[in-house]
Amino acid sequence: MNTVSAYQERANRVLEQLLPNQPKNTLHQAMRYTALNGGKRLRPLLVYATGHLFDIDDELLDFPACAIECIHTYSLIHDDLPAMDNDDLRRGQPTCHKKYGEALAVLAGDALQTLAFETLTQKAFKASDSQKTQMIHVLSKAAGATGMAYGQALDIELNQQQIPHSLPEIAQAKTGALFVAAIHMGLIAANNQNPTIEEVLLNSGALFGLAYQIQDDLMDSTEGTKASSHDFQKLKKTLDQATQLLQSIPVNTDNLWTVVKMMFPALND
Amino acid sequence: MNTVSAYQERANRVLEQLLPNQPKNTLHQAMRYTALNGGKRLRPLLVYATGHLFDIDDELLDFPACAIECIHTYSLIHDDLPAMDNDDLRRGQPTCHKKYGEALAVLAGDALQTLAFETLTQKAFKASDSQKTQMIHVLSKAAGATGMAYGQALDIELNQQQIPHSLPEIAQAKTGALFVAAIHMGLIAANNQNPTIEEVLLNSGALFGLAYQIQDDLMDSTEGTKASSHDFQKLKKTLDQATQLLQSIPVNTDNLWTVVKMMFPALND
Repeated sequence: MNTVSAYQERANRVLEQLLPNQPKNTLHQAMRYTALNGGKRLRPLLVYATGHLFDIDDELLDFPACAIECIHTYSLIHDDLPAMDNDDLRRGQPTCHKKYGEALAVLAGDALQTLAFETLTQKAFKASDSQKTQMIHVLSKAAGATGMAYGQALDIELNQQQIPHSLPEIAQAKTGALFVAAIHMGLIAANNQNPTIEEVLLNSGALFGLAYQIQDDLMDSTEGTKASSHDFQKLKKTLDQATQLLQSIPVNTDNLWTVVKMMFPALND
Repeated sequence: MNTVSAYQERANRVLEQLLPNQPKNTLHQAMRYTALNGGKRLRPLLVYATGHLFDIDDELLDFPACAIECIHTYSLIHDDLPAMDNDDLRRGQPTCHKKYGEALAVLAGDALQTLAFETLTQKAFKASDSQKTQMIHVLSKAAGATGMAYGQALDIELNQQQIPHSLPEIAQAKTGALFVAAIHMGLIAANNQNPTIEEVLLNSGALFGLAYQIQDDLMDSTEGTKASSHDFQKLKKTLDQATQLLQSIPVNTDNLWTVVKMMFPALND
């Protein structure tokens, strides 16, 4: 990987081309509005970084990278809805439903999810049918009723009442599942046949997801309380575990580590 | 095809097994509540009927049949939301958001869409990877930003203001696209290589979709006005066109016609 920002730009460029863009089509404009609104592209970066461990061509990574970003973007649009988190702003701009109305926002999220799976079946995507099917399987498992959507449902229940689920379980489903899927799709693109490498990388992905959610919660907490300091220690510990895991595998994981450092600025201190 | 009702029951049985069902998981219960609420299973029936033109095993048709029903069900849940059609009842029962709340209903719809694509990648589904990829391509194209979701966006714009789209264009996107996709997935399951048969069947599917939407609008209209009588003539004409098309191909389309008759009770007069 050249630089993180070069691959963020690459993901933006590919997304720009993949997103539908019929003139005067409000649905298309609503999809583009949120998808091209300057995200950090963490999940695409994880796909690229994983593929680069095996020297895979970028062309094989562009489609899974953008497919997973479509899933992430759809979840942001639906998460922001009044019935969910009711957020008016995202990345400093009006949220999709604030700009286009609730009905269009529901449909824009829906169509972005569909686009994720369509992307992985395009003829221009030069992976084999077996790789495509495996990627769609991994991505749908991660996004669906036992992955991301499940995590968000747990989150809603947590806010409504006491539920017998731990915060790490919610973080794992809500955030970790897509991080793991990003790495998994990179491994499929690379046709990796080494089960040890797969296991270590997927476990690291789960730890990144957990750590990322802890960091996200830290950033949401505006007070510098003892509790957040305790959370910060947990974050450091989770990342140390992931580092040790990554160091244990016989490939050069520098690229992946660069992405992870970008995710966790505290590591650069 | 034995009888229409036998295949409705078959689709229900397969759906029942495919839908997630973790105990005390509210998201799973919300998904099952709407998906198993006694639908007519028209789209699955079109998949089965098309496959039967080529004597394909039911096992190869179960997965696409249920995948397309998951897409249809997700669209019903989101369509019923307060921001969309704001319906309190569906098939005589409280709609998903009335029963489980809006947030869960958004997520249940989302997870049903994901399940559709996951279903087509399951190992138990004995189609080839090439067939799976083709089916996912067809289904995602039909459901997404130039198909069903587009049709629903047009519908919203139509209700809000004058827009330069004709009603047949909306009906084709909103309803026709999934009917065509159902038939197309049946053709893929059968590995049909005859372009004439494909063209005629897909065109018939588009006409069924248009006719079905006309009939739906007729049923919504509570007054027996001249306008509805005119619409009824349009319905008959569209169905006559589809019949002529079907009669022009060198396979026995009786099964398909049985399904279509079930869709349009007026034909049985």
